[in-house]
Amino acid sequence: MYLNIQKEIGSSLIKQIYEQVRSMIIKGELKAHERLSSTREMAINLNVSRNTVITAYEMLIAEGYIKSVPGSGIFISQGAEFAKPPERIIDYSVTAFSAKELSEDIIGFHSGTPALDLFPRNKWSRIAGQVIKEAPDSAFGYDYPQGRPELRNTLAAYLKKTRGINICPEQIIVTTGAKQGLSLVAKLLLQPGSEALIEDPSNENVKKIFLFHTDRITPIEADSEGIRPELFPQDRSPALVFVTPSHQFPLGGVLSIQRRLDLIRYAGKTGCYIVEDDYDSEFRYRGLPISSLQELDNERVIYIGTFSKTLFPSVRLGYIVLPDSLVEQCSELKRLMDHHTNSLNQLTLMRFIENGELERHIRRMKKIYRKRRNSLIECINEYFPGKVRIMGETAGMHIVAEFTDVEFSPKLMKSIEGVGLKIFPVEEHAVIKGKHRHQIILGYAHLNNTDIRNGILRLKEVLD
Amino acid sequence: MYLNIQKEIGSSLIKQIYEQVRSMIIKGELKAHERLSSTREMAINLNVSRNTVITAYEMLIAEGYIKSVPGSGIFISQGAEFAKPPERIIDYSVTAFSAKELSEDIIGFHSGTPALDLFPRNKWSRIAGQVIKEAPDSAFGYDYPQGRPELRNTLAAYLKKTRGINICPEQIIVTTGAKQGLSLVAKLLLQPGSEALIEDPSNENVKKIFLFHTDRITPIEADSEGIRPELFPQDRSPALVFVTPSHQFPLGGVLSIQRRLDLIRYAGKTGCYIVEDDYDSEFRYRGLPISSLQELDNERVIYIGTFSKTLFPSVRLGYIVLPDSLVEQCSELKRLMDHHTNSLNQLTLMRFIENGELERHIRRMKKIYRKRRNSLIECINEYFPGKVRIMGETAGMHIVAEFTDVEFSPKLMKSIEGVGLKIFPVEEHAVIKGKHRHQIILGYAHLNNTDIRNGILRLKEVLD
Repeated sequence: MYLNIQKEIGSSLIKQIYEQVRSMIIKGELKAHERLSSTREMAINLNVSRNTVITAYEMLIAEGYIKSVPGSGIFISQGAEFAKPPERIIDYSVTAFSAKELSEDIIGFHSGTPALDLFPRNKWSRIAGQVIKEAPDSAFGYDYPQGRPELRNTLAAYLKKTRGINICPEQIIVTTGAKQGLSLVAKLLLQPGSEALIEDPSNENVKKIFLFHTDRITPIEADSEGIRPELFPQDRSPALVFVTPSHQFPLGGVLSIQRRLDLIRYAGKTGCYIVEDDYDSEFRYRGLPISSLQELDNERVIYIGTFSKTLFPSVRLGYIVLPDSLVEQCSELKRLMDHHTNSLNQLTLMRFIENGELERHIRRMKKIYRKRRNSLIECINEYFPGKVRIMGETAGMHIVAEFTDVEFSPKLMKSIEGVGLKIFPVEEHAVIKGKHRHQIILGYAHLNNTDIRNGILRLKEVLD
Repeated sequence: MYLNIQKEIGSSLIKQIYEQVRSMIIKGELKAHERLSSTREMAINLNVSRNTVITAYEMLIAEGYIKSVPGSGIFISQGAEFAKPPERIIDYSVTAFSAKELSEDIIGFHSGTPALDLFPRNKWSRIAGQVIKEAPDSAFGYDYPQGRPELRNTLAAYLKKTRGINICPEQIIVTTGAKQGLSLVAKLLLQPGSEALIEDPSNENVKKIFLFHTDRITPIEADSEGIRPELFPQDRSPALVFVTPSHQFPLGGVLSIQRRLDLIRYAGKTGCYIVEDDYDSEFRYRGLPISSLQELDNERVIYIGTFSKTLFPSVRLGYIVLPDSLVEQCSELKRLMDHHTNSLNQLTLMRFIENGELERHIRRMKKIYRKRRNSLIECINEYFPGKVRIMGETAGMHIVAEFTDVEFSPKLMKSIEGVGLKIFPVEEHAVIKGKHRHQIILGYAHLNNTDIRNGILRLKEVLD
């Protein structure tokens, strides 16, 4: 029996013996009941220590490839031969497959992407480093599914201060972003046959997430003031109503107090829950953020928040605020989904809020985003005078532009992509098609003035 | 109309005006159609700038509380009155509700918790800090649902080197731990009516996660060599078989090559997938880690890995290795579950592996865990001579102790808890009850020799 053993530094002799013998057995080159060299013989043949051979043999015995018959020797076991498919040849060089950065020549008006280059990395880095060094051991182990108590305390106080939301820390579940928040809420409230009312248009992912649990999704038209409660079905008992009351996505409307109260009365009457997705209300350009629906009803409203916009998307931190009665069940769902959210990230966020850095960053970005928004609106008015109605500009990180005489057909979208421009038709987010063909979403928060101007210029070139 | 405005530093005048007027409207103190003071009057009354009042009024108008009738004045809107429930009084002081650390007087033989106090925090902190400063902007934005390509490259090479797993980086999906991996796989493979075969006993969470999708869960007995393929149903087509072949949880057996091949032939015959949960194979105390099932069949085996044991649990990083044909669908499930795993954590892990720190840490912990395991077995043999059979001691972070004459009934478990000791009966993880009453799981990785000795001493006191 021939083994090819390399005695270079860093190559394990045990591993080489184990793998070569194992390979010969699997391929059938060593047959069942055949006798294997004794550990002594093998050690002498290979000029390695006998312990090395013993360890390799023990591994082969543990996995059933060979067996030791006392007083008789070591033999190949039965049933270990296996015709494997030929191995694939794989290139593991790290450089060969590196992250594709967005081509610099494409201007993308994505909604919901903050200005990544303006995030205070050094501050975040310093705090994250401190947290890793100073956190209690418990923050390294399996942690509370609901999230670190310290962070939930801080969040409750922060929400009270900035949004007028009056809740106990025990009502909060820390999530890995709003999408996980929505996944959890869907799992909590929807079963096959449940009815979900959703704003139409609304983020297409909402519908996709709900469809995992039920196919009874009823679109309710949203206009420039948000969802229209007078269209709610009066004869049925839906499980939930999904809304974005502070800044309707994508149309941008603010839900009026009258509609809010209608919504809450409807929830009270039918026993359904209201799912309030508050994705970007921090960035309101006149006055303060709109107050939340949650504040009006602590029993029927589930509030979903995120730090993807106020910090950065890849941080994957968000939260849900739940009525007391749903907290325990939702925590268990979170536990079974991913146990809990990374604790060190949670504690970094906590300190970032406690130090005032989060509010400082939001204030700074609000000024910058306002300028970018103004610049975008100016460009549109300059290049398309009198032909575009702007919607949803009071808050957030995108506007909707409605063109009087342009229909954003798939064919037109292709031409637009052809000039290195990415814009997003509202129609893509609509459940009932055909009502939003003249409208596009233009996210601006991550674009500087030059990009904004060049982007709108490219659009003009295509439309002319 | 009386507003109580505080002009201290840090209190927003706009917010005070807005909130007080809003509150009066909601409570019905200001009635519909009532006329509100003009912005001029209000500014003079409160001795604030007119712009402040204008902004506050604009917010109230945007939310529908008041409306401006040109040429006539500003009026309270109809339908904004709402009897709110009394506010809860909440204590937000951060200190009041801090993390409960485990009481020092309890000795807990939890399985799967590494030695948190021995993790090289400073190294992790340094690398994490560097990554935050040096990562490309794209690592701060919405990122690839599958995980950062750089990390997947590194993982593929690492798995090849340490586990003999020969896969493309494109087959990997980075998850927030093994539990999310299992949730994704369950969602991918199970529908109502699907049959899932699981090892019995096995981690009780596996069953709970599968039950979200199907109630047809068939336990297959595992013995000291792992699952018994001769018990598989031959007349049906299950969707998956769940196994822990490297170190059966909790019994600790290594699945022999013959059973592995039976399993793979069964999967080939019935068209089902094998879900291989490899939760702690890095810590094998003789020789090298057991080879994976994945290596034997790249089409039928889904491999779930985690860094909870090799790094620390709260880092929430793991991965799934999938056959090519399932990657796209599973990525979409991950995208809709939480978009992607925190990118900066992913890049920190990548550098920790590339620098050799991970292997260095595993080598160091292996030595320590081996000593702790030996110490635990010695204590058991010393205090319970001839009365305990030890199982599953060749690898991992726990052993199973089978007592010849003790039945770990709920009543006994209560007495054990009464002396400040936490141990975990195997019976709790069994689907078919009654076969494991004499067995307990003893996790030792996080316990020093004193704790181990005191813990076993306490057990002896209760059992005597």
